[in-house]
Amino acid sequence: MKTAPSKSFELLASDSKSNARMGRVCTFRGNFDTPAFMPVGTQGTVKTISPRELEEAGAQIILGNAYHLYIRPGLDVLKAAGGLHRFMAWPHPILTDSGGFQVFSLAKLRKLTEEGAVFNSHFDGREILFTPELVIEIQEVIGSDIAMVFDECPPAAADFNYVKKSLDMTVLWAKRSKKVHQLQNQQLFGIIQGGKFMDLRKESLERTVEIGFDGYALGGVSVGESHDEIEKVVRAIGPAMPKGQARYLMGVGTPLDLLMAVEAGFDMFDCVNPTRYGRTGTAFTRRGKIVVRNGNYAEDQSPLDESCGCYACKNFSRSYIRHLVNCKEILGDRLLSYHNVYFFLTLMREIRESIQSGTFLEYKKRFEAQYDNELR
Amino acid sequence: MKTAPSKSFELLASDSKSNARMGRVCTFRGNFDTPAFMPVGTQGTVKTISPRELEEAGAQIILGNAYHLYIRPGLDVLKAAGGLHRFMAWPHPILTDSGGFQVFSLAKLRKLTEEGAVFNSHFDGREILFTPELVIEIQEVIGSDIAMVFDECPPAAADFNYVKKSLDMTVLWAKRSKKVHQLQNQQLFGIIQGGKFMDLRKESLERTVEIGFDGYALGGVSVGESHDEIEKVVRAIGPAMPKGQARYLMGVGTPLDLLMAVEAGFDMFDCVNPTRYGRTGTAFTRRGKIVVRNGNYAEDQSPLDESCGCYACKNFSRSYIRHLVNCKEILGDRLLSYHNVYFFLTLMREIRESIQSGTFLEYKKRFEAQYDNELR
Repeated sequence: MKTAPSKSFELLASDSKSNARMGRVCTFRGNFDTPAFMPVGTQGTVKTISPRELEEAGAQIILGNAYHLYIRPGLDVLKAAGGLHRFMAWPHPILTDSGGFQVFSLAKLRKLTEEGAVFNSHFDGREILFTPELVIEIQEVIGSDIAMVFDECPPAAADFNYVKKSLDMTVLWAKRSKKVHQLQNQQLFGIIQGGKFMDLRKESLERTVEIGFDGYALGGVSVGESHDEIEKVVRAIGPAMPKGQARYLMGVGTPLDLLMAVEAGFDMFDCVNPTRYGRTGTAFTRRGKIVVRNGNYAEDQSPLDESCGCYACKNFSRSYIRHLVNCKEILGDRLLSYHNVYFFLTLMREIRESIQSGTFLEYKKRFEAQYDNELR
Repeated sequence: MKTAPSKSFELLASDSKSNARMGRVCTFRGNFDTPAFMPVGTQGTVKTISPRELEEAGAQIILGNAYHLYIRPGLDVLKAAGGLHRFMAWPHPILTDSGGFQVFSLAKLRKLTEEGAVFNSHFDGREILFTPELVIEIQEVIGSDIAMVFDECPPAAADFNYVKKSLDMTVLWAKRSKKVHQLQNQQLFGIIQGGKFMDLRKESLERTVEIGFDGYALGGVSVGESHDEIEKVVRAIGPAMPKGQARYLMGVGTPLDLLMAVEAGFDMFDCVNPTRYGRTGTAFTRRGKIVVRNGNYAEDQSPLDESCGCYACKNFSRSYIRHLVNCKEILGDRLLSYHNVYFFLTLMREIRESIQSGTFLEYKKRFEAQYDNELR
């Protein structure tokens, strides 16, 4: 029988010229190296990719989602399987998002009170009440290695007074979450909200840290605000978060965003970008995104990315993948999604190596110089 | 540089109690064992499955389709890639169907003359003329290891006079195909037509063999006629086909059909069943087909097929795969299609072993006793 590690995070190297850091998060089901990218498996599968392909691509941890898994397959099915790891045949760490973001974006919200959020399921319209306590229970059934507290995620357009009130409630919910959380081998992370208001962000950070969690996440980022506003919050809050625990930036982002956020001291990331772009005919490369559907790739015999060592790049041409995408053949979505996930995971591995060898800012500069954000 | 094998087919074992036989077809790109099942890769991909997964599942040869590949990606793209093998990263044998079946079923046929068939593409409506000569040229560009002559495939309802006339034309087209076929390392197979009329089937067989091909196929089977009619033609024509060459039954069928046709002396088979059923939530098992979408599998922790050793069955439950199918997750289509292809290929391997050990009819009887055609 495994026992829970005594320390949830080990800091192994700090960059002397920036806030970047390299470390390791230790969970019941094994450790993962940070900075880490977590491929998103919302409904118990990282879209189009099998678990053995995820391992091959270098994934050490993936994401699940309490909201989606509660709706389908539901708790009974997850209980029958003995949790999400066995259900989806992924024996390595899983982090579950609490579903806060989904309740306030995807579902039709009906009523928000101190007790919780009443909403209609995006799937069948059924009315559901999510309380902080239920969301902890869901994540216990899922059996994730890292659980997140249930938070309110206000939209980018929300005004100061709304965000302030929302923040008070998120803090209250965080306390209730911690109180009922019992699963021994599961870490619980708090979430910092506060929108684009720096005072509220700092207040949220202080009050969340005061409650005390195994790690901390910056939430409510990349929900519709400008890129400058994102960067401002990330650069201000990252370095102010506790040094001895993992820092997780939720739902961000592009390769350039990840480099910026690592520089600001973040350790963990998740984003649907690799698989979402993969399913719409777009590949991430060292030179920028290429839309392989475009006619200029029709007879292009080169791989998606010349410098990539993934299965898709070692075997298939842009010409072939374009043909698959045009014919709506599933293998096209597969090869693009797999390559994109491999690309993000390789980026993180190289970032870790550069921090360890004290060359992170040089690595970042080199990557940025080569990466054309407007390439098609 | 490889050289073409001197013999296109080697007969290695004949069952003493039936017409079943075991052998090997020898092509420029390697041999494959018969009886062989060829997974169908119509548009240059076996739907949802990667080449390395096909190898793992035991595929030794796959099918392509001249009609589909001519329409997309087209000859220019295939030429630029240096043929279909390199285009789709499959270095093993490929057989291409001529597209006769597709022209007369999928496309909108405009005019049929001795010269060829004028039709509108099912993709963009463009008017195309397929002549026997063009279809040979297409297959030369594709570079398949086994090419098929262009034939007319009359519908099951066609009357004697129509089928008789059609047969004359198919024989004429076969002669023209052979005349222009030049690719050294590509075998060319003739196709026997004649519908449900046994006299015409025998006439077609004789006249096609008289022309002389590397192998012979029974076409126009399973195009809408009853199961009894299919079996009658298969059992009558199979044993009458040349013993020294490969016998290919086109587009058939179910596991029970394959056993019947092997008993009748056929060596090669193709069918979209494994991947088509896979994409609609159905798995083939030793006990029959199961529709894993059904509610009774919601919490079923057993694999698709208890006796199967494939990646899907060794790792995932019916409960999980049902969840994937319900959520329209691509991994569901993948696991079901992969399992089904593995199932068909394993059936053929076991059939070959049983013929070699002189126990084919016992094997067939045992399989049939266990297989419930009505299972859900």
